[in-house]
Amino acid sequence: SSVQGPPSGSVQELYVYEMNELDRGSPAYLRLSQKPVNHLGDIVPFSNKLYSGNLQKRLGITAGICILIQHFPEKNGDRYEAIYSFYFGDYGHISVQGPYLTYEESYLTITGGSGIFSGVHGQVKLKQIVFPFKLFYTFYLEGIPSLPEDLLGEPVSPTPDVEPSPSAKNEEPHACLPNYTM
Amino acid sequence: SSVQGPPSGSVQELYVYEMNELDRGSPAYLRLSQKPVNHLGDIVPFSNKLYSGNLQKRLGITAGICILIQHFPEKNGDRYEAIYSFYFGDYGHISVQGPYLTYEESYLTITGGSGIFSGVHGQVKLKQIVFPFKLFYTFYLEGIPSLPEDLLGEPVSPTPDVEPSPSAKNEEPHACLPNYTM
Amino acid sequence: SSVQGPPSGSVQELYVYEMNELDRGSPAYLRLSQKPVNHLGDIVPFSNKLYSGNLQKRLGITAGICILIQHFPEKNGDRYEAIYSFYFGDYGHISVQGPYLTYEESYLTITGGSGIFSGVHGQVKLKQIVFPFKLFYTFYLEGIPSLPEDLLGEPVSPTPDVEPSPSAKNEEPHACLPNYTM
Repeated sequence: SSVQGPPSGSVQELYVYEMNELDRGSPAYLRLSQKPVNHLGDIVPFSNKLYSGNLQKRLGITAGICILIQHFPEKNGDRYEAIYSFYFGDYGHISVQGPYLTYEESYLTITGGSGIFSGVHGQVKLKQIVFPFKLFYTFYLEGIPSLPEDLLGEPVSPTPDVEPSPSAKNEEPHACLPNYTM
Repeated sequence: SSVQGPPSGSVQELYVYEMNELDRGSPAYLRLSQKPVNHLGDIVPFSNKLYSGNLQKRLGITAGICILIQHFPEKNGDRYEAIYSFYFGDYGHISVQGPYLTYEESYLTITGGSGIFSGVHGQVKLKQIVFPFKLFYTFYLEGIPSLPEDLLGEPVSPTPDVEPSPSAKNEEPHACLPNYTM
Repeated sequence: SSVQGPPSGSVQELYVYEMNELDRGSPAYLRLSQKPVNHLGDIVPFSNKLYSGNLQKRLGITAGICILIQHFPEKNGDRYEAIYSFYFGDYGHISVQGPYLTYEESYLTITGGSGIFSGVHGQVKLKQIVFPFKLFYTFYLEGIPSLPEDLLGEPVSPTPDVEPSPSAKNEEPHACLPNYTM
């Protein structure tokens, strides 16, 4: 990755897919409210897989927690407060916090990062594609040097039938970040 | 809102009231410690209403979690680690983390924000008025453009009998932020 | 503490030890997964004591939560997502988020701070010494003025037999930060 930062105030976009392939025991819906429908008191630890926006590379994982804030019967949906991180192997991680609404897109804040993301700030758009299995994120990153090639590339348009490339899904070395987070 | 930022290093103050009107099922005190008194292991998801410092406008809600750290019998109070967000409708949100002490005021850190608060940093003073129903916050915001008029105005002095204006409480359109968070 | 900031872009290192002296009822391992081995769904609120890197001063406490993400039987270890704060008495606090791996060192992000740490960003290296009782942290702090003398000093090399000085452990006033967090 370049050691030269972009001009002050510039924003870099980073596209990633989060996919739940049902092989990580996630999510763990803890119905601590002891209510029959989703309710404040429920907590949902989760961890899914991350792929690059062009679906050619396995990046790593997400890891964190969703706190059920409110169930909206009329929308058949929920508001969660989400606090989690995106892991990118040797490149480091990005932490975020904000609203996860199961019925529409939302913006979370970037609270910080490590490695090449140290000092990052900005926000990220969360777009749900197939609840709760496929999500598409657009990060608006500020305060960090130029991203490495590995993380760039034209994103595939987020439609319900998107899938990672077979080599990325099979975790073939050329289709994974260096020491991608497992 | 202005697109011009304030001079570098300047601090903007933002005043908000958080009110628990007992209509959101909050807080959800999860006594996971299984101890008879508050103890490490207890977790408290919560969500309350937010009003402007002058009590003329409904802004949105808070949403997040308090983690019981320590009970102080001699103070009849508790230390919590609080991780939550303040939602301001179309304007976006602010996320915070830090100490919530039920027996004295404290400062939390602003970990980030979205919308007009994207890139924000600084701290916020939490002053409890009536436990656990009324709290008054003074945000010291840095790194963002000038706040919109909607969020300014002289704050009402935080006393136990403060109440939002009837039109704000009734969520009349002129007394709410655009698409205020419900 | 100095009111003059360091030159833009400079990094200050801060060394601290976190010690579990088994007198705070921590950690509270909540086996909410209801599985026989550590599993997604388990949550671990915790709070330990903090000492300066030279082990001559009691600083305060840590407070927060670890979310079990994955158990690795072959490593006899776990990945947690950790969200917590470091409290430094009157000086304020630093909040962090990121990976806690019980089998190797890791970097977390600094999400913000209060008091003398207001406006801080950067990252922190977590090095485990004796699981889960002794940890050593190196903070790489950016965006804040020079640290006070109290927090400086050569760190003791992190080995399994390190102990705080008797006067720090006994919380003698000269061996504690002003109003160190209890």
